Amino acid sequence: MSAKHKDDIFKPRPISGFVEWLPEVRLVELRWLDQIRDAFESYGFCSIETPSVEEIDALIAKGGDADKEIYALRRLAAEAGEDDTKTGGGRLALHYDLTVPLARYVAQHFGDLVFPFKRYQMQRCWRGERPQEGRLREFLQCDIDVVDLNEVSLHFDAEIPAMTLDVLSRLDIGPVRLHVNNRKILQGFYQGLGIDDIVGAIRIADKMDKIGTDGVLKGLTDELGLSGEVAQKCVDLALIKTEDVSFGGQVRAFGVANDMLEKGLEELEFVMAELAHLARGTVVADLSIARGFDYYTGTVYEGKLVDYPDFPTICAGGRYDNLVGSYSRQKLPGVGISIGFSRIFTKLVKEGRIEIGAKCPTQIMVACLPGAPRADVVATARTLRERGFKVEMYHEEKSLKAQMKYASRKGIAHVWFPATAEQPNHEVKDMLSGTQTAADPKNWSP
Amino acid sequence: MSAKHKDDIFKPRPISGFVEWLPEVRLVELRWLDQIRDAFESYGFCSIETPSVEEIDALIAKGGDADKEIYALRRLAAEAGEDDTKTGGGRLALHYDLTVPLARYVAQHFGDLVFPFKRYQMQRCWRGERPQEGRLREFLQCDIDVVDLNEVSLHFDAEIPAMTLDVLSRLDIGPVRLHVNNRKILQGFYQGLGIDDIVGAIRIADKMDKIGTDGVLKGLTDELGLSGEVAQKCVDLALIKTEDVSFGGQVRAFGVANDMLEKGLEELEFVMAELAHLARGTVVADLSIARGFDYYTGTVYEGKLVDYPDFPTICAGGRYDNLVGSYSRQKLPGVGISIGFSRIFTKLVKEGRIEIGAKCPTQIMVACLPGAPRADVVATARTLRERGFKVEMYHEEKSLKAQMKYASRKGIAHVWFPATAEQPNHEVKDMLSGTQTAADPKNWSP
Repeated sequence: MSAKHKDDIFKPRPISGFVEWLPEVRLVELRWLDQIRDAFESYGFCSIETPSVEEIDALIAKGGDADKEIYALRRLAAEAGEDDTKTGGGRLALHYDLTVPLARYVAQHFGDLVFPFKRYQMQRCWRGERPQEGRLREFLQCDIDVVDLNEVSLHFDAEIPAMTLDVLSRLDIGPVRLHVNNRKILQGFYQGLGIDDIVGAIRIADKMDKIGTDGVLKGLTDELGLSGEVAQKCVDLALIKTEDVSFGGQVRAFGVANDMLEKGLEELEFVMAELAHLARGTVVADLSIARGFDYYTGTVYEGKLVDYPDFPTICAGGRYDNLVGSYSRQKLPGVGISIGFSRIFTKLVKEGRIEIGAKCPTQIMVACLPGAPRADVVATARTLRERGFKVEMYHEEKSLKAQMKYASRKGIAHVWFPATAEQPNHEVKDMLSGTQTAADPKNWSP
Repeated sequence: MSAKHKDDIFKPRPISGFVEWLPEVRLVELRWLDQIRDAFESYGFCSIETPSVEEIDALIAKGGDADKEIYALRRLAAEAGEDDTKTGGGRLALHYDLTVPLARYVAQHFGDLVFPFKRYQMQRCWRGERPQEGRLREFLQCDIDVVDLNEVSLHFDAEIPAMTLDVLSRLDIGPVRLHVNNRKILQGFYQGLGIDDIVGAIRIADKMDKIGTDGVLKGLTDELGLSGEVAQKCVDLALIKTEDVSFGGQVRAFGVANDMLEKGLEELEFVMAELAHLARGTVVADLSIARGFDYYTGTVYEGKLVDYPDFPTICAGGRYDNLVGSYSRQKLPGVGISIGFSRIFTKLVKEGRIEIGAKCPTQIMVACLPGAPRADVVATARTLRERGFKVEMYHEEKSLKAQMKYASRKGIAHVWFPATAEQPNHEVKDMLSGTQTAADPKNWSP
């Protein structure tokens, strides 16, 4: 650590896809995370955290496309050919979401959990992606899920988005609109139209945002060989967006008869009716929403920022028939939403849309005065701290000007001047107004 | 996820060295972490978080022995021989402590930080160790450090342990004793005795706990070739432990004249005098403490649980001359302590010494009654939530017995019965006393 030759200077550089913040930004991030956690807990969800790693086999089995992006661990000191498995080097990888860990957690601790199991989880995830604009390789997700034995009450399909909207309303990101659909509507409708390749049709219709209605029509006719009439009905379905339950009548007017379709409509009507107490426009039944993952089987969600239409989806989720899959023969359906915290926060910070304040939590800085007895100064800081204030002591006998500059640069609201022989009263300076008044550490308040 | 053949069942198993907790334990862990954070912030320390990874070169350069335990990342999908560096696979590894990240952070953001830079950092670290009794491969550390330009006030050498003791006193771990020494005392004393291999002598003397005074004497004479008289003085020095500044007189009585020794004694006397306001016995000047790391140059600390003498060190740290080393030509000395949170918490949990309570944060469960209008029930829960209560709704129309069993198993203190046509008053049941009384969601309090 002592080498000081120019050649030894190792210029630290940011690592692409991994973000870190200055203290003033971190303070805002912490406040946001506290608000999210408070909101989750106000609905009675419990916190869990899982290790950062899972067994590679488990990650790949559940991963779909994500397995290409898995960061596996290897012990740096493992020799070539060394059996690294005892140190976890050979079979562990960082999780890329919080769903695989949840599934493993529920299966592993099944007998110790109370169902319905309602958990929130705020943890980092990793994806070994090639860096692109805005793509993060390490990011924090905030997930909530309800998992139950055999069946999950449909009320949760409404409570989860209500809770998510409540959570997001506490952050400084403006209004959020939650788009809700039900996969059964898409599947039943397509089935009722006689479409064979339902997954393919959903995949094409899901691109409406990117390729427009003409692109979707062309895809459905050219790629899937659907008639123009059937393709048009698919597009017309996806164009239905209502802020109440009126989507039901619009869909039924197509005259497509299918049991699954009807079940999907009833479920979505139930959810929309349960959410009717929310401000109008906050939740939209949007029949274009499909969500890519195959495991969603009912309600699906996508959240968007109203003020920033260019912003990608900020939260998404839905209902799945079975969480634990190959871990257990027990059927454990669930419903949940994942908030892409880092994606939102990072983008807002980089666009300068976050209001940055102080550089530290300090409320009061106790100045260092030559004439003040040290023990008294320490006692003053302690008294203020015991009264709940965040107090730092300035420890160097620098000029008052230097001390005030330090407090000012860090955004500290009050500077405390302890009593001295010449000035037997404590005094406090309000850094905003500049006024300085006598004060007693035992009862002062700002 | 649908396969249900017996062969497909993948039994989830704990991964050695990676811990996770049931919700009821996690609730305690969260409370502890909140208390630590509150304490850190009450001294004006700011939070930072850094990425989980650093460049391998930086980790190795600073690591000493720790580099053997580094978990490097490789992208799972990287083909053999593929240039993996663009995806971070080739040059990134998980950090094994929070000191290397702090050094890189300070060097990288140097111009944006206000000095003295006082930060706390509570993050996971990883070491690819072979699993042993109690050894964790993923663990949470809580670090505080003060870093300044060119010089750090010695007041911080006293404030850091005072703060640490304050932090630890908020946890349910009984009394903590902090052992304090100064590396200059050891170095100066050994130098003054004419010992050549000072590092070797410190290393042997540091083993007093394990090999006893006879072992140390033997090591110093046999391995280093010291005379019996000199070796005895080394042992006698290490046996000095005082709860006040009286160690100074005891050391000076040896008559060893050395400037560095005198400077070390003065520094330790200053620190002990500054800490005189703490309860007697909380801090001990313990001249046996050496700390393994070479980069400590002055005050060193080790914290122990008084009630559990078999417990390893729970926190440790000290003063270093230069944090950033090869990152910068700027000299940045500092002083800090690291609390081994996971080590303490895991051991206490496994030994059954943590008091476990509820399985969720919920304070009130709103029961599901067939006769209660849904919108009213939702509104009741919302009203209670807006008043600051943590409220979960029971969503299934199960028997009251089943609902009460759920609340009881989760440790929920109150069950709320919403108004129905037959029973126009809301009622609340206190689950502990069993009493049930009429209540109004707008003004009820427990």
